[in-house]
Amino acid sequence: MSVKERLITFRNYMDEKQVKLSIIWEPDNQYYLSGFRAITYSRPIVTLISADSTELIIPGLEEVHAAEKARVDKTYIYYEQIDMRHKEVSYLDHLTKLLKKYPSETRIGIEMGVLPSSIFVYLKEFGFELVDIGQQIVKMRAKKDSDEIEMLKIAGKLSDFAIEESLKHVKAGISELEFDSYGDKLLLEVASKLYPEEIIGYENWTCSGIIRSVMPHLYSSTRKFENGDMVVHSRVIRFNGYRAENERTFFVGNPTEAQKDLLKLAVEAQKVGMEMIRPGITAKEVDIASYEIFKKAGYGEYVNHRVGHGIGLSDHEEPYLRFDNDLVLQEGMVYTIEPGVYVPGLGGYRHSDTVILTKDGSYSITQYPRELEDLMFE
Amino acid sequence: MSVKERLITFRNYMDEKQVKLSIIWEPDNQYYLSGFRAITYSRPIVTLISADSTELIIPGLEEVHAAEKARVDKTYIYYEQIDMRHKEVSYLDHLTKLLKKYPSETRIGIEMGVLPSSIFVYLKEFGFELVDIGQQIVKMRAKKDSDEIEMLKIAGKLSDFAIEESLKHVKAGISELEFDSYGDKLLLEVASKLYPEEIIGYENWTCSGIIRSVMPHLYSSTRKFENGDMVVHSRVIRFNGYRAENERTFFVGNPTEAQKDLLKLAVEAQKVGMEMIRPGITAKEVDIASYEIFKKAGYGEYVNHRVGHGIGLSDHEEPYLRFDNDLVLQEGMVYTIEPGVYVPGLGGYRHSDTVILTKDGSYSITQYPRELEDLMFE
Repeated sequence: MSVKERLITFRNYMDEKQVKLSIIWEPDNQYYLSGFRAITYSRPIVTLISADSTELIIPGLEEVHAAEKARVDKTYIYYEQIDMRHKEVSYLDHLTKLLKKYPSETRIGIEMGVLPSSIFVYLKEFGFELVDIGQQIVKMRAKKDSDEIEMLKIAGKLSDFAIEESLKHVKAGISELEFDSYGDKLLLEVASKLYPEEIIGYENWTCSGIIRSVMPHLYSSTRKFENGDMVVHSRVIRFNGYRAENERTFFVGNPTEAQKDLLKLAVEAQKVGMEMIRPGITAKEVDIASYEIFKKAGYGEYVNHRVGHGIGLSDHEEPYLRFDNDLVLQEGMVYTIEPGVYVPGLGGYRHSDTVILTKDGSYSITQYPRELEDLMFE
Repeated sequence: MSVKERLITFRNYMDEKQVKLSIIWEPDNQYYLSGFRAITYSRPIVTLISADSTELIIPGLEEVHAAEKARVDKTYIYYEQIDMRHKEVSYLDHLTKLLKKYPSETRIGIEMGVLPSSIFVYLKEFGFELVDIGQQIVKMRAKKDSDEIEMLKIAGKLSDFAIEESLKHVKAGISELEFDSYGDKLLLEVASKLYPEEIIGYENWTCSGIIRSVMPHLYSSTRKFENGDMVVHSRVIRFNGYRAENERTFFVGNPTEAQKDLLKLAVEAQKVGMEMIRPGITAKEVDIASYEIFKKAGYGEYVNHRVGHGIGLSDHEEPYLRFDNDLVLQEGMVYTIEPGVYVPGLGGYRHSDTVILTKDGSYSITQYPRELEDLMFE
């Protein structure tokens, strides 16, 4: 990751806004600006960025990990053993000491959309002027650099391998979760051979049958595939944190004509979106054009989500491809294109691909076939 | 889930604190109090609890799902299609309307530790008095009811199946992620047979070799096991959201005597904690007693985390088993017991089991063998 270049851009922004210190709380934002990504639950990690230093507050159990990975100038450690009780035992012990250096009324940058209210109140008590720097990071993260694009491409390729392998095993009687597991297993074998020492992550959501497929977001369950099911299968692969989303709707056994038509409609709506997206167009244009396909066919009322979202270190990243977003798209942005239609009694239909905007167009990093004839399994 | 009983307890608390409305933001807390658990990223879901009503604000794509699962009195939907632009298109559209019913200075309950600062500021603008109700939910969630305990037990049993299967495949040359995948695959097959229509989740972290095993929390990588490796393997299984944590340190090939001794030490420290934990004892006593084992053996400085954490719907739940926590433990609480020691040059050693406190003791819902001789693989 080009942490150094990102910090230059971010500090220029801080300087412009007269922000003396930024407190970065959101884990993906911290990774983006420090190169350090931990598994965090109950032990907060905080990244502090000032004009001349980046600092990290971490729990003792991350000391060795941070020493290896974090590209920061200084690390502060808090402890949780009784023999360390005379030292800092909470991230707040460090934060309070560090913040005391800044006079009241200093402009401090925070991510308003994620920083917990308790920390907001704590910072207010110092008398600081709090400034939202969250949108600047959103803006920076939206345009991927070449390192990020390389990782996304690998994630896309791996997702195709995994989907292909799971689809080889489709039959009535296997559960959603078993279906998922075939692709996962191959994914990890392939990734272990091709990318030794890298970090792979994966998530699947598989919604099968008329009842479950009309709910766009469900955790995979132990429900077993039945003949006649349509299945909306979602697969997100992370390569060193960077995500590709790859979704296919497929049939177990023979679909009815009405169901075939709905899948074809979803394929057409996606094609419209994928062909349209490019630098210079607005986010809303892509959303509306794709939606129009469903609407013209009389299914507009069964659409219940936007056509796509930004993706990268996070699953859903702003800005979104939504009917009310006037944003002009740019080279380097990465979006899912995933129009969906969910008709009670007939099932849900949605493919999703992840596309990267180039100078004058776009390409998809996910390539598994999308047509009806590729997606019927006995 | 006994949502009804929980709401009675929670409303009594609200009444006592003169809180007229609670805004529940944290997804696990919402699940706990409404029965509804969605996959949420960029589309907020909000649960509102007043004296006589529970209400849910959800995006359109969760409408069918919520109608099936949510045990609430009323649901408000926001939309993201252009043809719905005359309706509510954001959760804030609903929230603002609902909040306008409450006069300025009304006491409104929020989770100070998780509610984003932007929402805090938004609520302040109504003139409300904001009251932290987060700790009350923590307190309620810490003591599991019988339904929750049944689900935890199943999660524990499934985690044993999965660990056993992965360990059957240990050999030099397979990667951390491949190792994980064997257990996952069996887990999903077994779960699909035993618990049709339930939701299973799973996470693994496998840290192999001297360098990686000294970092307590790392994502599994494509690094391949080598002869002589010690491996710290962590497995968390969720059954309908309820988690069991099961961790074993094992050897690939023959360990040195020093390494065997360290594993035995970790086993002993864990045994002390597991035998000690029961209602009436304090959280700190368990932590300190377990830590003393390492300290007496001269390894105190290589301990870098507390002995355990609460677990349930979330991975790490308060309150913690930490040297400075005077909390008296109670029946129904659920804890991991996982003392660890991480010695540069010799590797990391940690088992974790999940124990449920009974009237006069405790039992472990994770049962895979813990002794050295069970954990050496050629």
